[in-house]
Amino acid sequence: MLTDKNISFTSLDTLGEFGLIDRIEKSFTPKYANTIKGIGDDAAVLQGDDHFYTLVSCDMLVEGVHFDLSYTPLKHLGWKAVVVNLSDIYAMNGIPNAITICLGINNRFSVEAIDEFYIGVEIACRTFAVDLVGGDTSTTRGGMYIGVTALGKVEKNQVVYRNGAKKNDLICVTGDLGAAYAGFRILEREKQVFLENPNLQPDLAEYDYVVGRQLKPHPQIELISWFKQNNFIPNAMIDISDGLASEILHICKQSNVGARIMEDKIPLDIQTQKVAMECKMDTNTFAFNGGEDYEMLFTVPITAHDTVKKIPNVSIIGYITDKEEGVNLVSKQGSLVPIQAQGWKHF
Amino acid sequence: MLTDKNISFTSLDTLGEFGLIDRIEKSFTPKYANTIKGIGDDAAVLQGDDHFYTLVSCDMLVEGVHFDLSYTPLKHLGWKAVVVNLSDIYAMNGIPNAITICLGINNRFSVEAIDEFYIGVEIACRTFAVDLVGGDTSTTRGGMYIGVTALGKVEKNQVVYRNGAKKNDLICVTGDLGAAYAGFRILEREKQVFLENPNLQPDLAEYDYVVGRQLKPHPQIELISWFKQNNFIPNAMIDISDGLASEILHICKQSNVGARIMEDKIPLDIQTQKVAMECKMDTNTFAFNGGEDYEMLFTVPITAHDTVKKIPNVSIIGYITDKEEGVNLVSKQGSLVPIQAQGWKHF
Repeated sequence: MLTDKNISFTSLDTLGEFGLIDRIEKSFTPKYANTIKGIGDDAAVLQGDDHFYTLVSCDMLVEGVHFDLSYTPLKHLGWKAVVVNLSDIYAMNGIPNAITICLGINNRFSVEAIDEFYIGVEIACRTFAVDLVGGDTSTTRGGMYIGVTALGKVEKNQVVYRNGAKKNDLICVTGDLGAAYAGFRILEREKQVFLENPNLQPDLAEYDYVVGRQLKPHPQIELISWFKQNNFIPNAMIDISDGLASEILHICKQSNVGARIMEDKIPLDIQTQKVAMECKMDTNTFAFNGGEDYEMLFTVPITAHDTVKKIPNVSIIGYITDKEEGVNLVSKQGSLVPIQAQGWKHF
Repeated sequence: MLTDKNISFTSLDTLGEFGLIDRIEKSFTPKYANTIKGIGDDAAVLQGDDHFYTLVSCDMLVEGVHFDLSYTPLKHLGWKAVVVNLSDIYAMNGIPNAITICLGINNRFSVEAIDEFYIGVEIACRTFAVDLVGGDTSTTRGGMYIGVTALGKVEKNQVVYRNGAKKNDLICVTGDLGAAYAGFRILEREKQVFLENPNLQPDLAEYDYVVGRQLKPHPQIELISWFKQNNFIPNAMIDISDGLASEILHICKQSNVGARIMEDKIPLDIQTQKVAMECKMDTNTFAFNGGEDYEMLFTVPITAHDTVKKIPNVSIIGYITDKEEGVNLVSKQGSLVPIQAQGWKHF
C-alpha cells in the first residue's frame, strides 16, 4: 500500500477520513503476539494477563474542527475530551482505568483557563474512576489541540468486537439519537445571532437537553455495568461517535452481514425533533449523520429479545440480515432506502 | 490547586512548561489501585499481571515548535515521532510493544506526503518490534500535529524510576551529548542561507553526524538489552529529551539528593564541538540545554564501577551527593557551578 516514491500528488479530499484510515490500517496489520486486535475497532486489544486484555484507544479534538471555544466552556471541553475516549473502552465491553492527555495551547490561554479545562478533566476522571497518569503540553502556532488516550481492561471471555453480529441478531441502541447534533445546530445559530447583534443574549432554556448532549456527553457506563451484573454479552458493539449510518455500516462490513433499521423505531427526543423542524431538516439526517451522541449500538441474538427489553433505556431498532440484502433503512412507508456513510469530511 | 473561580488571569509565561506540568501533577495524584505511578516519570506504571507492569507514555510534536518541515523529511519525522516515545518506555527499563498516533494535518498535505510519514512510522515500528494499534486523524486549521502514545511492559522487580538515586551513586550517560542541538543549529543556519539565496545548495556532508542526530534519533534499546542480559538494574534512570541539566535535576529532585557532574567527562562528538565553535557558543550549552539527544542518563551503586565500564558506549560523568551539596557542574578549572534547568520555554 505504502510506496516510497513520490511520483504523484493526490489530494487528501479524494480519500476522506475513512479512506485515509483504511489506507493506514492496511499498512499496519499487527505483527507481534502481544497485539490481539490492532487498528479497526473502537479500541485496540493487547495481551494483559491470564484473565484480562488491555484496551487502548485514542481520539483527538481540534479547535475549529471539533469544537468552537466561542460557545464551549473549557470545563465542559475537559469533560468531553475524557468521556469520548472512555466511550471507546466501554464499546469493547471494557472498564477504563487510566488516561493520558496531550494538550496543545497557544499563549492566548491564561493559567486560569487551563485550570478550567483540567477541572472538567478531573470531574470526568472522578465520575468514571480513572486516573490521569501522563501527558504532554506544548504551545501551538494555531488553535487548541487535545489528544487523549484511554486505557482499560476487559475479561478475555467478555471482549466485544464490531465483527460479531450474526444474521437475525436484534440491533439495539441506548438513549436517543441526533440530540448532540441538534445542540450543535442551536449553538451555531445562537452564535450567528450574537455576532450580528452582541446585545442579544441567547435564550437556550428550551433547548437545554440537546445543548447539554453536545457540550457534556455521557458515556454508556450504565449499559456495561448492566451487562456485567446480568452476565450478558452482546454479539457486536460500537459507540455512536460519527452517526448511526457509519456505525451500523462498520458493524455490517466487519461482521460480513447486512441490516435493516426501522425508521419508526429510531429513538428521538422531542427537542431534537423540534430543532430539526426549525432547521427544515429531516430528523433522519440528525440521527444517521449527526454524530457525537456517544450512545451504544449493539446486536444480540434474537433469543435475547426478552432480556434486552429489561435493559433500561435501550431500543430495538432493527435486525441483522444476510450480507446480500445490504444495509437499509425501512422507511415509515415501508420502502427500503440504502444507508450510506457520511462520517466526517474534514479534508 | 485548581480553583473553580476565574478571579484573575495569569499568563502562561509565568509558569512555563515545567511549572504547568507541576500544577497538573499536583491536581492528579493517583486515586485508584490500578495506578502504580502516575504523572512525574518517563512513563506511567499501571498494574499489568502478576509479573509485569504496563507502561504508558505520550509525547506530542508540533509543527513550528518541535519541527520545521522546510528541512525535516516526513519519513524522518514519522521515525522520530515513534522513537521519542519508545525512549520513554526504555527509560523505565521496559520493552515497548505498541503505539497509537493522533495525527493532525491540513489539506496542503497530499496522500503521498502522509504515506511518507507512515513509512517512517512503519520502519521505526519494525526496527523496535512494536505494532501501531490505533490512532485518530483530523484536519487542522493550522500546522501539523503528532501525538504518539507508547505502551510497554516491564517485569515488576525490574522497573527503574527517576527517584532511586542514592548518595555516592555513579552518574552515567550513553553516547554523546549536544549533537542533536548542533544538528538543529546547522539546519537552521542552512535554511537561512537558502532563504537568502535559493540558488545555493546546502552542503551538509561535514555535519552528517549531528544532522542525523537531530533528524533521526536512536533510542537506547541496546542499553536496556545489556541490562537484561547481564541481570543488572540501575538505581535511577531518565532519557535525555530536554538536555542534561533538566534531566539530572529531575533525578536529584525526585531522589532527594545532590549531584556533581565533571565538565571534562561530558561526552561530546567532534562535530558537536566544531558547530559550537562556529556558533561561538559554549559546548556546555549544547550538552546541558540542547535536548533531543535521547541518550540515557542513569545512576548505579559505586560498587558497580567495574560493571559499568563493560557496558558499550557508556561514560561515567559524575556522582550523587547529599541533597545539601546541591546539583553542580565541576568545571575544568575545579570550580563549582550550580546547574539550572532551562527546558523548553514554549509559552
